[in-house]
Amino acid sequence: MPISSNLIAEFKNLLGPENVLTEETDRLSYAYDAAVLKQVTPGLVVMPDNEERLGRTVKLAYDNSLPITVRGSGTNLSGAVIPDSSDTVVILTNKLNKILEINLEDLYAVVEPGVLTAKFANAVAAKGLFYPPDPGSQAVSTLAGNVALNAGGLRGLKYGVTKDYLMGVEFFDHNGELVKTGSRTVKCVTGYNLGGMMVSSEGTLGIFSKLIFKLVPPPKASQAMMAVYDTVEGASETVAAIIAAHILPCTLEFLDQKCIRVVEANSKIGLPTEAAAILLIEVDGSHQAGVDEDAAKVKELCAKCGSKNIQVARDAEEKNKIWEARRNALPSLARAKPTTVLEDATVPRSKIPAMVSELNRIASKYKLEMGTFGHAGDGNLHPTILTDRRNEEEFKRVEDAVDEIFDVALSLQGTLSGEHGIGIAKAKWMVKETNKATIEFSKRLRTALDPKYLFNAGKKII
Amino acid sequence: MPISSNLIAEFKNLLGPENVLTEETDRLSYAYDAAVLKQVTPGLVVMPDNEERLGRTVKLAYDNSLPITVRGSGTNLSGAVIPDSSDTVVILTNKLNKILEINLEDLYAVVEPGVLTAKFANAVAAKGLFYPPDPGSQAVSTLAGNVALNAGGLRGLKYGVTKDYLMGVEFFDHNGELVKTGSRTVKCVTGYNLGGMMVSSEGTLGIFSKLIFKLVPPPKASQAMMAVYDTVEGASETVAAIIAAHILPCTLEFLDQKCIRVVEANSKIGLPTEAAAILLIEVDGSHQAGVDEDAAKVKELCAKCGSKNIQVARDAEEKNKIWEARRNALPSLARAKPTTVLEDATVPRSKIPAMVSELNRIASKYKLEMGTFGHAGDGNLHPTILTDRRNEEEFKRVEDAVDEIFDVALSLQGTLSGEHGIGIAKAKWMVKETNKATIEFSKRLRTALDPKYLFNAGKKII
Repeated sequence: MPISSNLIAEFKNLLGPENVLTEETDRLSYAYDAAVLKQVTPGLVVMPDNEERLGRTVKLAYDNSLPITVRGSGTNLSGAVIPDSSDTVVILTNKLNKILEINLEDLYAVVEPGVLTAKFANAVAAKGLFYPPDPGSQAVSTLAGNVALNAGGLRGLKYGVTKDYLMGVEFFDHNGELVKTGSRTVKCVTGYNLGGMMVSSEGTLGIFSKLIFKLVPPPKASQAMMAVYDTVEGASETVAAIIAAHILPCTLEFLDQKCIRVVEANSKIGLPTEAAAILLIEVDGSHQAGVDEDAAKVKELCAKCGSKNIQVARDAEEKNKIWEARRNALPSLARAKPTTVLEDATVPRSKIPAMVSELNRIASKYKLEMGTFGHAGDGNLHPTILTDRRNEEEFKRVEDAVDEIFDVALSLQGTLSGEHGIGIAKAKWMVKETNKATIEFSKRLRTALDPKYLFNAGKKII
Repeated sequence: MPISSNLIAEFKNLLGPENVLTEETDRLSYAYDAAVLKQVTPGLVVMPDNEERLGRTVKLAYDNSLPITVRGSGTNLSGAVIPDSSDTVVILTNKLNKILEINLEDLYAVVEPGVLTAKFANAVAAKGLFYPPDPGSQAVSTLAGNVALNAGGLRGLKYGVTKDYLMGVEFFDHNGELVKTGSRTVKCVTGYNLGGMMVSSEGTLGIFSKLIFKLVPPPKASQAMMAVYDTVEGASETVAAIIAAHILPCTLEFLDQKCIRVVEANSKIGLPTEAAAILLIEVDGSHQAGVDEDAAKVKELCAKCGSKNIQVARDAEEKNKIWEARRNALPSLARAKPTTVLEDATVPRSKIPAMVSELNRIASKYKLEMGTFGHAGDGNLHPTILTDRRNEEEFKRVEDAVDEIFDVALSLQGTLSGEHGIGIAKAKWMVKETNKATIEFSKRLRTALDPKYLFNAGKKII
């Protein structure tokens, strides 16, 4: 059902005509996100440019029973911002993009929802502080999107994920009323931890208007290296050995042979294409001597676990080359075939050897091309299937393989999703990981806070 | 209304008669907690001894519309476990006290709700790992109580608080059904972050049955010191200077003159009773050289900010003496007068000088004896009023002073409660810190998850 012209006029009146997109060509741009799922064109796309107008937009849409999907940059991989129907109002946050405060004495920042992650991290760095969460999409993703999906990234093992940095949040409820929770203080237990509840709620409980993030002092020294392995087991054992030595690297990434080869084919950076796997490791800390000691120990453990080739970055350029390999993994895989199905099933890190071996078995069983890379330090692997959505027969095998990947992850005490979220893509597996009572409990929660079921309607997070 | 004998027989049948306390003398022990508030004797006290019987206890009580208060060790300071009425069933967690798993490879532990905090921390330490949250009551407090109140402690600044270590939780909902959320993995975004929501929910949303905590490698080196100041400002400036130097001490504690004097009077450990304030500081890290460097820098900053007397602990005994001063602060204050009113209004740390000066003004305005100590590093001070509950006139002044303390904390962008919780004690100030819409939103949440309003009924967390 299209949105009535009267209502469109009301949105134009509220936001200014330049902030209301009605043309189909414009609306089409907001019909999809980064997941491989059916597109749905929304009825209206609006761009509130301040907090008050954001609240009034929510109220106008909700009072008129229009489904609301808030969209940052649409980088999520679970279909979390695909509109539900043709009468959905998509609220863009791109005009709510101000960094309101970076407080150097009290180590926090206050931002509007549409601030880009990397832009924020850079602004914080320019003031001498550090915002650690670094999702792969950070160059374009928004901070509110990061909170809504609880974005992870490469630094999860040592520094945690987005939720570990959210100190406070303000959001609009279904009445368009502003709810405030959390504080500018390190400690705050005033009322329910609504910020904790909003994290990873995927736009279904309220509309973010302001976020307060914790900042930390930056590391003063770091050391990166690449260790090359003849066997996947050697790489896995290294991860376990590093943790057993009580060293928490800031990044500890894994690439299997398939990934190494596609990255090398695309980037020609001199990766060892005969290797079974590589680990990309960076240790950091507040003292050079400590970092040197950790790096030496890590190098020793890599060698002990079978790496015959360990390249330590001698300067910033060499370090950048190491991380280029990692950054190129997904783009290179994505270029190899028309469709890339990127999963993020996650297991306790000690189960990585079992998981990698099962992934290889599954790829072979379903005769699929699969590359696996990811955050070995926190057990968050990204098995990536290269396919073509238009090949129905093959895509059925892809779906069966994904089913089996989740079964295996759960049997290894893991989780469906380490950092991509549930959205539409993974809804059907939710009950397998939790149980019926958890789904029912979550539904009661959702219905109480969104009685008309309009906030990101159709998202089966529960 | 007393609980019927038929129903009591059902509880005895379910739990065994030895696990059901009906005598008034027994029930009286569970009529109060550590807050200075009116006692309410519960109708029944039960001790389920396994998870299944805990679930069935919840169901039996809920189905029969009995209010349920879960009680760990009753150490909270906000009245959060004072029963609501004479038909309340108090569920004790003292027989649900098993540490189920400490996983050294994947850095987590799984525990039952009634495990004591210090016992857990010691068991983790014995295996070579570290559980940082250290609330003042850790020797007797329970882990589920820590989660329900989001307990803080001395290590908040560097290591965070209880919520920063909760990876997963299982709890019984109002139907007695088990809800499962979170994971044994570092990253998990499967469904709502119900664990985040349950943190600091003060027993009002469900009954914990199992908790999964993150563990970290322990620091390998540490250095403690005491810096003595002629002025409170000097101590406050030191805190700011340490943070500005990007050093995060693991503990950074403040004691004012009143506290110093009562501790010294009680403990005779040689504290400088003429000092205006002391800071107790400990830095730690994974490398001795780094810790030495930090300690030297901190010492330099203390001197620069006016401390003429800095005692660095040369051995474990001297270190212990420093922390004894801090540990004795509350017991010594409590011994000075019949009633101790301990608050935890918290401000961004840069506002500590303003807060301390306002606290002194308020004590003098209301002619009250007040000592202030607390976690200067995270702005979480504990102004402690020494009074006598039986002196109605004086207690009225205490209440007015507390009102004003909260007003001041909020005007300094702080919060009502850094770590003690809202319970009954601080309910009336909630709306001042948040707003009406936040209270209404929280009520919708609570009512949806506890439709009969039986979970810790009477607790005005919202």
